[in-house]
Amino acid sequence: MFDSLWVDAHLATMIPGPEPYGSIRDGAVGIRGGHIAWIGRRADLPGTPGALARQVHSAEGGWITPGLIDCHTHAVFGGNRAQEFEARLRGISYAELARQGGGILSTVRATRAASREELTRGAAFRLQDLATDGVTTVEVKSGYGLTVADELRMLRAAREAGPMAGVEVKGTLLALHAVPPEFSGRRDAYLDLAANEMLPAALGEGLITAVDAFLEGIAFAPREVEPFFRRARDAGLVLRLHADQLEDGDGGRYAAEWGAASADHLEYTSDDGARAMGRAGVTAVLLPGAYLVLGAERRPPVASFRNHGVDMAVATDLNPGSSPVRSLRLAMNLACTLFGLTPEEALCGVTRHAASAMGLSDRGQLREGLRADLAIWGVDHPSELSYWLGGASPLLARVKAGVPVHA
Amino acid sequence: MFDSLWVDAHLATMIPGPEPYGSIRDGAVGIRGGHIAWIGRRADLPGTPGALARQVHSAEGGWITPGLIDCHTHAVFGGNRAQEFEARLRGISYAELARQGGGILSTVRATRAASREELTRGAAFRLQDLATDGVTTVEVKSGYGLTVADELRMLRAAREAGPMAGVEVKGTLLALHAVPPEFSGRRDAYLDLAANEMLPAALGEGLITAVDAFLEGIAFAPREVEPFFRRARDAGLVLRLHADQLEDGDGGRYAAEWGAASADHLEYTSDDGARAMGRAGVTAVLLPGAYLVLGAERRPPVASFRNHGVDMAVATDLNPGSSPVRSLRLAMNLACTLFGLTPEEALCGVTRHAASAMGLSDRGQLREGLRADLAIWGVDHPSELSYWLGGASPLLARVKAGVPVHA
Repeated sequence: MFDSLWVDAHLATMIPGPEPYGSIRDGAVGIRGGHIAWIGRRADLPGTPGALARQVHSAEGGWITPGLIDCHTHAVFGGNRAQEFEARLRGISYAELARQGGGILSTVRATRAASREELTRGAAFRLQDLATDGVTTVEVKSGYGLTVADELRMLRAAREAGPMAGVEVKGTLLALHAVPPEFSGRRDAYLDLAANEMLPAALGEGLITAVDAFLEGIAFAPREVEPFFRRARDAGLVLRLHADQLEDGDGGRYAAEWGAASADHLEYTSDDGARAMGRAGVTAVLLPGAYLVLGAERRPPVASFRNHGVDMAVATDLNPGSSPVRSLRLAMNLACTLFGLTPEEALCGVTRHAASAMGLSDRGQLREGLRADLAIWGVDHPSELSYWLGGASPLLARVKAGVPVHA
Repeated sequence: MFDSLWVDAHLATMIPGPEPYGSIRDGAVGIRGGHIAWIGRRADLPGTPGALARQVHSAEGGWITPGLIDCHTHAVFGGNRAQEFEARLRGISYAELARQGGGILSTVRATRAASREELTRGAAFRLQDLATDGVTTVEVKSGYGLTVADELRMLRAAREAGPMAGVEVKGTLLALHAVPPEFSGRRDAYLDLAANEMLPAALGEGLITAVDAFLEGIAFAPREVEPFFRRARDAGLVLRLHADQLEDGDGGRYAAEWGAASADHLEYTSDDGARAMGRAGVTAVLLPGAYLVLGAERRPPVASFRNHGVDMAVATDLNPGSSPVRSLRLAMNLACTLFGLTPEEALCGVTRHAASAMGLSDRGQLREGLRADLAIWGVDHPSELSYWLGGASPLLARVKAGVPVHA
């Protein structure tokens, strides 16, 4: 007996195979105990729906996909940077903006100045935007606090905002985002704080499942990331890496050497870097919003990733500076229109491969035994999810661990 | 005595002047008979709000802009082309797609096959998407019917859909969009039908205020457009032109010679073309959605337009093939991020300059005597309207000819 059963649906299971989207026409999904207990063609159901399940739901002839996963966000922050966006388009240089107090440190100031309630409320609104697009799991990074107390406050806000929006939040400690101004000239002291105080504190409070570091000429060097990554790996945390966004810092290979679950951005990753990622099973997280907003000149090496069997995820990178993107469907479209992904690759990038990027093996596909996180769509074909730019979401309903949640 | 008065508002009047956005801090707008009767600083109001107006509305400290205008859409159509979008990204060529029945003629088939009710309902949904972004006026083109009956049916659907979405629709006869298959080899007969039957029929039924033609190597030549434009100009209709999208067809100059209100797309317009447009007062309509979706290689010459004093409008180009864009705020963002417009230019492009592109002088600014079409926004600064990508609209309310309409 199922707790519930979905019928009148086509299924995009996203299980690899000969059918595009791993699709099953006229399918059914049986749910028990929050997990998928049965999936297949409706004609193969071992009985009539009413006899098999306590509740029978109709998808009205639409499509069911795995609940979408936004695997890279900075959804907790104070303020916004619309006027900095305007200043840049008026031709004011980055250097001048930095002198005026702009850039990432302006968000650090605004985030430190915001109360936890303000941070939670702001994040909850943005997570609701994502939920409207069928998202059921969101990764949220810290990194605008940069003190023990402020990093924890951000992560607590993320944890609180999730249930308000009906999404599951997984916290990531991005302590190595920038060196805060009060540590100017004392980088090693900050690195020590990150690895030996922030990390144990966030872990001790159960706020994180992963860590992240910004490996880039303007941010942190490989030898600086090492102690932070070692401590995180020893604690069993998932490793993520911002890499090769502005120049080739050999970030793909670095992520591979560390066994990171993902390397993210990757505009300048070399073919060698892509090969190393493929061998080590590192997922490439593509962030077309940041590429668009920064007016970047180089696209990530999608052909190399395909050649070397690197799984590609797609995410919003939702943040107030380089990617104020509040729609995962829009990120899917931009991955297609800017980077040349197919709509099937884009959907895979926000389901199966997004789960890999977060080190999660319990979701991201419609498969027996996985969590019953579903998105139900009023579309004729799953390519429509990447096709429209803006407009009302075609989402009909979401199911989170078997339970329908407000769309 | 005003019918109504808006207070607790900052105003982006979009009237040219030294203040960015023509802004007035702590302003007030008085409305009488559907028009703006008073506008200025609240401190300069000639009395207390309650004594001046029958109804006093608070904008809650937000910003009021002119109601937005989407000056270039193909919002009425049958079907969608998501699977063609997917096929293109899988590497199937245009030529092959055309052989398979894809491209614009596939939308012509689907539009002809759709009932008027289906066309109206689909358009109303899409116009509601636009309304959510503060749009109060939308231009809707025909061009997927290409018979007298089907062009009229599209324009009637557009007229009916407007009130359903609370927006004012202005119809444009785009008879010269493509030569329909049944006229293959008989182009002159189709041109004759367009100018001498479609145009008088649409005009006679009061369905249009403008005409449009697709001037391009793959579409219509200047001498083919001429009889259609002459007849339209003689009838007092506004002229619009799709021009220079795929190659420099001297479309800017052609639009200038004909005194067209706008030339649209313009990726390949020469500096001479821009100069001619500036002298003749032709508005350049920028359509970044089509640029993005087609993966175009060349940006419209924004610097030339600025140099030659050409007004730049921004629009969605909402259509199922090259620009499935259902958000004017998103088009504003793309005009900034892809074409380098400032957020102020983008907002001007969907207000004052969008009105010019449609030949309308009664809206597009907050100015005494103009129509009281307003959008009220919960933002701290008008740059936010171009800054966010996706997410819930910050619109608080719309006012159409003085009357609040559902957002």
